[in-house]
Amino acid sequence: MQRVLDYLNQRREDHLEWAMELCRIPSVSTQDKHKADVRRAVEWTRDLCRRAGLKATIYDTPRHPLVYAEWLGAGAGAPTYLVYGHVDVQPEGDRKLWDADPFEPVVKDGWLIARGSSDDKGQVLLYLRAAEAWLKTEAKLPINLKLLIEGEEEIGSPNLAPFVQKHKDQLACDGILISDTGLWEDGLPTITAGTRGLCYKEVRLSGPRHNLHSGSHGGPVTNPANALARLIESLHDPDGRVNVPGFYDDVVDPTPAERAAAKALPFDEMKYAGELGVPGFGGGEPAYTLNERRSVRPTLDVNGLYGGYMDEGASTVIPAMAGAKISMRLVPNQRGADISARFERTIRERCPASVRCEILDHAHADAYMTPGDWPAIAAAKQALRDAFGREAVIIREGGSLPILPMFKQALGADSLMLGFASPTCNAHGPNERVLLADLDRGAEAVTRLFERLAVRS
Amino acid sequence: MQRVLDYLNQRREDHLEWAMELCRIPSVSTQDKHKADVRRAVEWTRDLCRRAGLKATIYDTPRHPLVYAEWLGAGAGAPTYLVYGHVDVQPEGDRKLWDADPFEPVVKDGWLIARGSSDDKGQVLLYLRAAEAWLKTEAKLPINLKLLIEGEEEIGSPNLAPFVQKHKDQLACDGILISDTGLWEDGLPTITAGTRGLCYKEVRLSGPRHNLHSGSHGGPVTNPANALARLIESLHDPDGRVNVPGFYDDVVDPTPAERAAAKALPFDEMKYAGELGVPGFGGGEPAYTLNERRSVRPTLDVNGLYGGYMDEGASTVIPAMAGAKISMRLVPNQRGADISARFERTIRERCPASVRCEILDHAHADAYMTPGDWPAIAAAKQALRDAFGREAVIIREGGSLPILPMFKQALGADSLMLGFASPTCNAHGPNERVLLADLDRGAEAVTRLFERLAVRS
Repeated sequence: MQRVLDYLNQRREDHLEWAMELCRIPSVSTQDKHKADVRRAVEWTRDLCRRAGLKATIYDTPRHPLVYAEWLGAGAGAPTYLVYGHVDVQPEGDRKLWDADPFEPVVKDGWLIARGSSDDKGQVLLYLRAAEAWLKTEAKLPINLKLLIEGEEEIGSPNLAPFVQKHKDQLACDGILISDTGLWEDGLPTITAGTRGLCYKEVRLSGPRHNLHSGSHGGPVTNPANALARLIESLHDPDGRVNVPGFYDDVVDPTPAERAAAKALPFDEMKYAGELGVPGFGGGEPAYTLNERRSVRPTLDVNGLYGGYMDEGASTVIPAMAGAKISMRLVPNQRGADISARFERTIRERCPASVRCEILDHAHADAYMTPGDWPAIAAAKQALRDAFGREAVIIREGGSLPILPMFKQALGADSLMLGFASPTCNAHGPNERVLLADLDRGAEAVTRLFERLAVRS
Repeated sequence: MQRVLDYLNQRREDHLEWAMELCRIPSVSTQDKHKADVRRAVEWTRDLCRRAGLKATIYDTPRHPLVYAEWLGAGAGAPTYLVYGHVDVQPEGDRKLWDADPFEPVVKDGWLIARGSSDDKGQVLLYLRAAEAWLKTEAKLPINLKLLIEGEEEIGSPNLAPFVQKHKDQLACDGILISDTGLWEDGLPTITAGTRGLCYKEVRLSGPRHNLHSGSHGGPVTNPANALARLIESLHDPDGRVNVPGFYDDVVDPTPAERAAAKALPFDEMKYAGELGVPGFGGGEPAYTLNERRSVRPTLDVNGLYGGYMDEGASTVIPAMAGAKISMRLVPNQRGADISARFERTIRERCPASVRCEILDHAHADAYMTPGDWPAIAAAKQALRDAFGREAVIIREGGSLPILPMFKQALGADSLMLGFASPTCNAHGPNERVLLADLDRGAEAVTRLFERLAVRS
């Protein structure tokens, strides 16, 4: 093992060069003008897999290709793990907000700054750094390794589930390894043990054919914007609970141990408020801590509101239509499809007959939770402790990763989320960055993890 | 009198030509590119006043000019009336929705179709048609006549009040005559005896500095859009009354006679619903009829809603900000300034501390009511009966005319609103039109009214 770690250490500069090369490719999956760049990033990844010693193939999908790579030399007696990651990125946004070219990586004060540096190019490369280290020094890996690296994550992985379904046998594994999350604090190793689900709806109320003069007609006409406000208001109780009948029926409360662990996490509420710029926290259920409300409890948030006259100044109209984008974050064992139906039923029941109601369905996905007793968790904790010199924390994430329940359903495999992005990485925003020291510790952790996972419990 | 009416009748074709000439001038006051056209319309009006036999002068204001004209030959013993009107128009909007050029008037099936044909060019000319008929046949008018015709009505008459204040003595009169409203039905003579006031506010709630990821932060963060919905909802009681403390304190209920008269108006609720395209009427207070709710009762309507992600599709953000444009229509004796203060106080009291609240003030104006016992009303009823062959109806208008309380305050004079626009005139919309038969009857009514008003009661 020491030889492997020495090799890893010695290759540090070259591995940084890998990350910089990959970050130079503007593989923005949502923009057609970058279609060739996404392919280039996928091809670059395939080539790197091969250089590291894996067998790698590109598969085309209806939009962007993906790369599948494997090294199965550990034999049938050893476990098999599937690494998932992505090499496409978010658009750079307003370039004026960047201190440098988003696709010309810069190293400054120990940070690598570039679009994709932390989400997910820098992190997906950790597995190739570790694989290379093992294969170049020991000519083998302790486990069978499969990699599935796509180019469509930032557009919602539209072609991943069909691919996985079609290649179930090829992808068969004992578990999934994913590094696409973050550290609780810089230098604090973090396992993300769960993600919330999502149910995203849009409610549109329409009344008059056109916007009406609010003087001539105001009074008897049911104003769609007022009616919408009333509907939205009805979706929460005064105590902060979501008021959709049956919403909490399947919710599993965190265990006392989970609650205690969450409370022990270092957290400064004032600092957090300052980071977000909010004057206070008034959302959610007071019986739960702030961090519980944003991770293990379900929510209902308006994501967008529109209707009537939205420009500067005043216009005296009764809107013909008003709409709200409303999404709910779900927790185990709420099911997206069930909550979607309950939401729709509730809205239709409460909507007055004097407006028309249209409900659009944007997305629903289930929450995911890594089983607490899964041996891979213990293995990861050891590997992280050894690499970081600190005990790992286990957190739950408020966001959603619909691929996790998808993998569970299609492959019967659980996912281990080891994230190394900084809380200040600004993924999706300007000056996205990654702390190189944590990437290096992450590479060591993954290298060690391969060996830990080899021990079947 | 018969000679005057004969002259009027004989000039019908020429008077139609006046309207067409004036409608050809695209005097859109809100658009800078039409600044010269507004002046041209005002100059054209001055010239016509002179040709009709009045003394006329143009006054410049900081934006668009206005014309003042007078004939004071009836002497100090006769009453003096001030005609108010405007020759600026609304933008034509989407030209594709028009059947012809909005500024190339067309006569079709008895209608004159052009922007401004009913609002207000066709109507303001009625007074010049009548004045000309009197002056060309009798060389005098039965009353002293003043005209104040502006070019800024469609942008809210920003320079009218200062002008009136400055020229109080010059404008001194026994009453104001305005034809800028409509008929209850085509061919049914209509006096509008009151308008509602207006209080227009904008409430903006802001929380986080930027839109936040609704997964990572959703729960504890007070969502400004949800908070806004809750505030809006709180502004109505379940019974449809406006829930702003003190809102109804100064409201004067219509008299039993007014209520009976309003109930006697021809009205088909199904037809009205069909015209608006609404599936029903669920707004306002059930204790009042539909027409009362849109004229003699105050309202609170959201005119616009915005916040967060408003484009197509889905984006999982907690909005940094959400806003609502909210206006209230007021009735006698509510005061705009008082309601504005009450509204603001209510919003601030109910707004949670975990969001910031900004309240913008767009406008407030008082309601206006023509005194029921004003002799000019009786004079108008007689003139309308003689011209239309039908008894006039007296209605109250749901819209607002801030100039009416302004005239009352500055000149101490009440206003007589004689409107001849069709309920289907589509003012401000495409294919604006006026029924020529009603314009002609209107011209006769105004001609007769001058004589009726001469009799001091």
